[in-house]
Amino acid sequence: MDTLDTIQKRCSLKAHISKREIESEKINIILEAGRLAPSARNYQPWRIIVVQDRKVIERLVKAFSESNQVIIDAPVILVVCARAGDDVIKNGLEYYLFDVGLAVENMLLAATELGIIIHQMTAFDESMVKQILHIPEDVRALVATPLARPIEASYDEAARERLSLRTRKDMKELLHINHWTEAEPA
Amino acid sequence: MDTLDTIQKRCSLKAHISKREIESEKINIILEAGRLAPSARNYQPWRIIVVQDRKVIERLVKAFSESNQVIIDAPVILVVCARAGDDVIKNGLEYYLFDVGLAVENMLLAATELGIIIHQMTAFDESMVKQILHIPEDVRALVATPLARPIEASYDEAARERLSLRTRKDMKELLHINHWTEAEPA
Repeated sequence: MDTLDTIQKRCSLKAHISKREIESEKINIILEAGRLAPSARNYQPWRIIVVQDRKVIERLVKAFSESNQVIIDAPVILVVCARAGDDVIKNGLEYYLFDVGLAVENMLLAATELGIIIHQMTAFDESMVKQILHIPEDVRALVATPLARPIEASYDEAARERLSLRTRKDMKELLHINHWTEAEPA
Repeated sequence: MDTLDTIQKRCSLKAHISKREIESEKINIILEAGRLAPSARNYQPWRIIVVQDRKVIERLVKAFSESNQVIIDAPVILVVCARAGDDVIKNGLEYYLFDVGLAVENMLLAATELGIIIHQMTAFDESMVKQILHIPEDVRALVATPLARPIEASYDEAARERLSLRTRKDMKELLHINHWTEAEPA
């Protein structure tokens, strides 16, 4: 699929998760997309826990918010972690968060391209997640996402309603031309 | 282009920037890709200054590191900004940095798809950049990038050598299976 179409079609579909297995080849492509992301000084701070063991998934999901319990059927949950010290810190800005965002967006788009549901979540109890997954103290669990095939026949069918409801700020709220202008730019 | 090909081909090509104009339609597609990115609770913290005025570009580039002076010829420089307070802060994690990373990766891929050089940079004097662009005190200038057409006949030609030299950590350094394991997972 064309990259711009994929960017357009990517959406968060936790309500459409099926129990169906995902081919390991597809999981590997999604992880490879993350691996190829750029990062400050090429530090590549992202670390990914690939949870596929049913017992671990069941314990892990208990650490998630009520509205995220629907991911329990997913055959795979990725937990994306990083250490602040593994990346640039400049003027108090911890670029590991930014760089992990770059890698996660690559994974979101690769999954979408493959018709796999991926829905990033931050509404979990981080200390519970860290305990369940044996994550070291200095490593942060930043975001988690199920990987799943949709209950519908296709990703497009699963995504149709969600995409029709999507809202984004108008471009004029986001852009400034040549200089920051407090009023909305023309 | 296929999304996975675009992810593979995206690279940082500041040394290949030409003075040639970029069609405004392409600039708009790149910005739209950023606009469509996901974010925690859909807060969309990213704000983008689109610098096209030659005089502003010349002043702005003085705030960049010596090795980044090569971007002076670029017809467009984007400066991506955000406020921490415009996004989720959880357990001390400021997700605006993460979410801006998601939006920037979309822009990197959209530009690559269109054959436009985009090369994100953080090696600039933030206070100088903020002064030159009139950025308010509570807004951070997180990353800047030129947009430019390559001096070569095509993006692929410009990227060939750079891609051949690209290094990334082995997957086994990045992945953990089911639990974090201090030793490298098998």
